[in-house]
Amino acid sequence: MNHYGILGSGSWATAIAKILTDNGHTVNWWIRNDENRRKLAERGHNPHYVSSISFDVNKLRLHGDMKTAVAQSEVLIIAIPSAYIHDALNGLTAEDFRGKKIISAIKGIIQPENLLLHQFMERDFFTGIPYADWYGVVTGPCHAEEVAAEKLSYLTISCAHAETAARYAADFSTPYIKTVVNSDVDGVQYAAVLKNIYAIGAGMAHGLDYGDNFLSVYIANAADEMATFLRKLVWKNNTEGPHNYAASAYLGDLLVTCYSMHSRNRQFGNYIGKGYSVKLAQLEMNMVAEGYNAAKGMHRINSQVGAKMPVAETIYRILWEQLPVADGFKAVEAVLV
Amino acid sequence: MNHYGILGSGSWATAIAKILTDNGHTVNWWIRNDENRRKLAERGHNPHYVSSISFDVNKLRLHGDMKTAVAQSEVLIIAIPSAYIHDALNGLTAEDFRGKKIISAIKGIIQPENLLLHQFMERDFFTGIPYADWYGVVTGPCHAEEVAAEKLSYLTISCAHAETAARYAADFSTPYIKTVVNSDVDGVQYAAVLKNIYAIGAGMAHGLDYGDNFLSVYIANAADEMATFLRKLVWKNNTEGPHNYAASAYLGDLLVTCYSMHSRNRQFGNYIGKGYSVKLAQLEMNMVAEGYNAAKGMHRINSQVGAKMPVAETIYRILWEQLPVADGFKAVEAVLV
Repeated sequence: MNHYGILGSGSWATAIAKILTDNGHTVNWWIRNDENRRKLAERGHNPHYVSSISFDVNKLRLHGDMKTAVAQSEVLIIAIPSAYIHDALNGLTAEDFRGKKIISAIKGIIQPENLLLHQFMERDFFTGIPYADWYGVVTGPCHAEEVAAEKLSYLTISCAHAETAARYAADFSTPYIKTVVNSDVDGVQYAAVLKNIYAIGAGMAHGLDYGDNFLSVYIANAADEMATFLRKLVWKNNTEGPHNYAASAYLGDLLVTCYSMHSRNRQFGNYIGKGYSVKLAQLEMNMVAEGYNAAKGMHRINSQVGAKMPVAETIYRILWEQLPVADGFKAVEAVLV
Repeated sequence: MNHYGILGSGSWATAIAKILTDNGHTVNWWIRNDENRRKLAERGHNPHYVSSISFDVNKLRLHGDMKTAVAQSEVLIIAIPSAYIHDALNGLTAEDFRGKKIISAIKGIIQPENLLLHQFMERDFFTGIPYADWYGVVTGPCHAEEVAAEKLSYLTISCAHAETAARYAADFSTPYIKTVVNSDVDGVQYAAVLKNIYAIGAGMAHGLDYGDNFLSVYIANAADEMATFLRKLVWKNNTEGPHNYAASAYLGDLLVTCYSMHSRNRQFGNYIGKGYSVKLAQLEMNMVAEGYNAAKGMHRINSQVGAKMPVAETIYRILWEQLPVADGFKAVEAVLV
């Protein structure tokens, strides 16, 4: 039995596998595709995602069967795009997860029920067990490409229990990864979802040919809107937080996602800003940016919460209700301060 | 008598002259250098700063003598680098400024006394008159190059009296400039000074080859540090502000200054990060970045205020106390969250 199992084979899963194996851990790693698993085992590189990372294959236990990967791990790090969670976990049972711990590395809302991962897992696998006892989250401004290059990055580990967070944090700390801990399990997840929506908007602004001056105002206002939502739903109007939103997991992650060339959500928005349809942008990128579905998910969640979020709402309407992107940004212009 | 006079001939003064003349105002404009004034009058371009801006010279009253420029204006917009303020205003008297209004477009601390512009002007020219009655500030994430290109930008006008702010705001509003008003005259000035220091640090990080992940964490923490200072000195521990620091004049201005290629402070820091000395970096750029002196000024001011500012303090020590830049950033790494 190994301590950690990683479920998922994309960029972020691959970066996490590097961090943990560099730190001396042997990990179980579920990769569905047989060919990719075989190539990784043979050559020590994930063929399609951050393929520059070179693995010590002796530290990898690759699994095509998820039940086995789960059974042989104590802590499951789930790094599957939220759109594929239903499908990927189909066939597993509460029995499979009995006694296991979960770390979410997901930055999306699970559709169609608009659930964060712990809500989904609690419903289907951990019924009646408080998620404080089995759930944690890893977030951070941490593009996988820079982890591959061992550029210093910060991860935030969020758990209800401080000792658990500290233990995970130690396992994720390497010379190129510094870790921060907090207990804001719900807040960091919503922040991770929202930042992708705002990054699509940043890309749209770029595509529409707005400049640096505008972009900075847009992002500052997006940061404020994100904090407004968190205060209302999670932080219960405690104006200081309880968590400091100008920290890496909140503002930091928003900044890197809005500004970095590595950001897929920004790229997707850029296509939309330049006049591509959603379908064409997705074809061109050969992927669905997480923020696309997140825009709909957060629109629905906020219809209950009622936070004032004109920017996120406008991006939702551009992506899902055929609001022309230039018209949408005229409306955004008018609400920025 | 024209309503506005502009004192200064650099990039920001030139951008302001464009905004006001585009808006139909005839402006008095003090430009010390005879040759530059003559070329501007002949050709409608400021030869050395944002020379792409084309002026309607009929709207410009150019003055080489500051007394005349001041005498013929009701509202003086001061856009002289803080290092040259003493020298530029030398020879003027309280009598010259009697009944005049001042708008600061300065983003620095006046040395060696470490004064904001209103403190300096109050001492030398407006003794005994509350600055609420004669002083306002224009700030914003607003690189002059983008004003020249008429890229949509936001300016914040800060005055103690809301009607005055609104009047100025109307005069600064154009199709490419949106204006926001607030009453945080002190806070926006400190934010404008601090952001240049943090931008030097962002440039240092870039020069030291840190990546996007790190930069986002650095800037988020800088934003928090700025807010910490403002809360302590200006906002008197009102945690909500009274002003929203995730607005364009605070966070927005910090972002554009830290991220934009147009930012001279960032460029200066980049040279330092790559190993240039301060002197060589200044020679290479042919100018002194405002943040360089600001680092010393804020260090001294904060020695009275006592806000926790490890990032600004480290940048001060790198620039002024020969702390090696790489060592300084190792210390910064350790305080970021």
